[in-house]
Amino acid sequence: MAEFSIIDTYFNRPSYSSVDLGVGDDSALLTPPPQQQLVICADTLVAGRHFPIDTDPHAIGWKSVAVNLSDIAAMGAKPQSILLALSLPQIDHHWLKGFSQGLYDCCDQFGVSLIGGDTTQSPHLTLSVTALGWVDIGKAVPRSGAQAGDLICVSGTVGDAAFGLKYPDHALKKRLDYPTPRCELGQALKGLAHSMIDVSDGLAQDLGHILKASHVGADLHLDQLPLSPALQALPNQQKWQLALAGGDDYELCFTIPSPALDELKARHCDTPITVIGVVKETQQLDFYHHQQPQELELQGYQHFAKTTN
Amino acid sequence: MAEFSIIDTYFNRPSYSSVDLGVGDDSALLTPPPQQQLVICADTLVAGRHFPIDTDPHAIGWKSVAVNLSDIAAMGAKPQSILLALSLPQIDHHWLKGFSQGLYDCCDQFGVSLIGGDTTQSPHLTLSVTALGWVDIGKAVPRSGAQAGDLICVSGTVGDAAFGLKYPDHALKKRLDYPTPRCELGQALKGLAHSMIDVSDGLAQDLGHILKASHVGADLHLDQLPLSPALQALPNQQKWQLALAGGDDYELCFTIPSPALDELKARHCDTPITVIGVVKETQQLDFYHHQQPQELELQGYQHFAKTTN
Repeated sequence: MAEFSIIDTYFNRPSYSSVDLGVGDDSALLTPPPQQQLVICADTLVAGRHFPIDTDPHAIGWKSVAVNLSDIAAMGAKPQSILLALSLPQIDHHWLKGFSQGLYDCCDQFGVSLIGGDTTQSPHLTLSVTALGWVDIGKAVPRSGAQAGDLICVSGTVGDAAFGLKYPDHALKKRLDYPTPRCELGQALKGLAHSMIDVSDGLAQDLGHILKASHVGADLHLDQLPLSPALQALPNQQKWQLALAGGDDYELCFTIPSPALDELKARHCDTPITVIGVVKETQQLDFYHHQQPQELELQGYQHFAKTTN
Repeated sequence: MAEFSIIDTYFNRPSYSSVDLGVGDDSALLTPPPQQQLVICADTLVAGRHFPIDTDPHAIGWKSVAVNLSDIAAMGAKPQSILLALSLPQIDHHWLKGFSQGLYDCCDQFGVSLIGGDTTQSPHLTLSVTALGWVDIGKAVPRSGAQAGDLICVSGTVGDAAFGLKYPDHALKKRLDYPTPRCELGQALKGLAHSMIDVSDGLAQDLGHILKASHVGADLHLDQLPLSPALQALPNQQKWQLALAGGDDYELCFTIPSPALDELKARHCDTPITVIGVVKETQQLDFYHHQQPQELELQGYQHFAKTTN
């Protein structure tokens, strides 16, 4: 089966109306909405590295879209469309059916169209998705805008995906396989949050990216971390390891001035939000547990202080 | 070396001025030029399949950009920026230096910025590039606009890349490793050509995509094919095999009414153009040699008639 047939069979559904020309030409065509900036990102999933090779193909399809929509959400933007670059060892119709279904399920949930891409043969299963979205001009939320005094917030719960990776029979495994991009919250934060990032590499590391880009530091309160019951039941060092250094949560971490947080609540966004710390001028990340300074030994965590010189 | 360091070291040059936010945040930001449609595509290169694994990394970098700019050109659009999804078996600084230099050399030649992407570890070297461009609203040239009576044209010479693959010591190998995206010609054809495609899979197959999408057929004159001297010297069947079924030329094939071709010549585009045939209503692709019908046995060529039913 040639590339063209794979695309026709599995990846050629009609686009939503905002797409002028989708799959099937040299390129796709989109008319920009008025007064909007284009937001665009690309993320790759490699079999055996980002997911076990025997992962349900439906989950792989879902996740390949979700992790990219999460990057769009982290800018405060509304996602519109994706391109898929799919490199496959062989043509496995069972796999392709499940994968394409998972991909479209995630697209449909967030009103996103698949508008193009490329299918190639490769010795190793690799998926690169490019996602596009739009945001009001000047309203995108960068990593670099955090200011001393901002509250540090995170959506949902953290550490669930890492727990699911460690205990694959637990219900939290679903959080690893089917992450929820926080698209509604991301858009609600546009013009309100000073800085934002999605939590893909672990909360401590990703918050570190905000602090580095913004030339600030933070006090983080370990006792305020939003944790699922399964994580709450663990010893402190274990729960902190998962919550701070576990990746793949795809929650949003953002900094916001206190009055803007009240404004956000008035916007009736349903996503749970927890205040976990505060931004400070001193360029270091300090941890506290019930107001007491806490030294942490996190595996797989690149210390913020060491990377900033 | 972590992903962040690879990006900082090799892929963090300043963008051209049209980019609002480039490498280093969750997503990149672009402000659309007024009255333009966004044109976007993605193409993947897999080591061992799209290039020999020991190809000069500089050539790999160049080609990974060039093949995508070619897709933008084939819409009649002006390329603006790219995203790179790079999956690498190991961190090889010699390779990364050459690759990034080749990538930026192609970007610089066509005024294109690298604005984002993703670097991951993978057992197999795989590169996916997404390219973005802009075109006046309604002026993009699709595959589907060919009309009976249109002249069929192709830029440059065809079959060179396939010749270079077969005879890697010949100077034409450069055409395989360093394809030239026909960006100037593509833009000159906007609003003039009825249909266009870039020749990546072989002229016969790619012209077939135009004919299928446009519900028309064509007469193609083998004696009019633009060939380099090395190909002209070959027996007919060999030269036709390379020119019609050899891929990787990245020339533009387009159909255009005769008066518009005169108009194109008045636009002083320097790229050589050759008329090789004419579009007809009957939905089949027929070959002629000095006015005589010619049966062809092309290896690796999916017959147009068989794929259209």
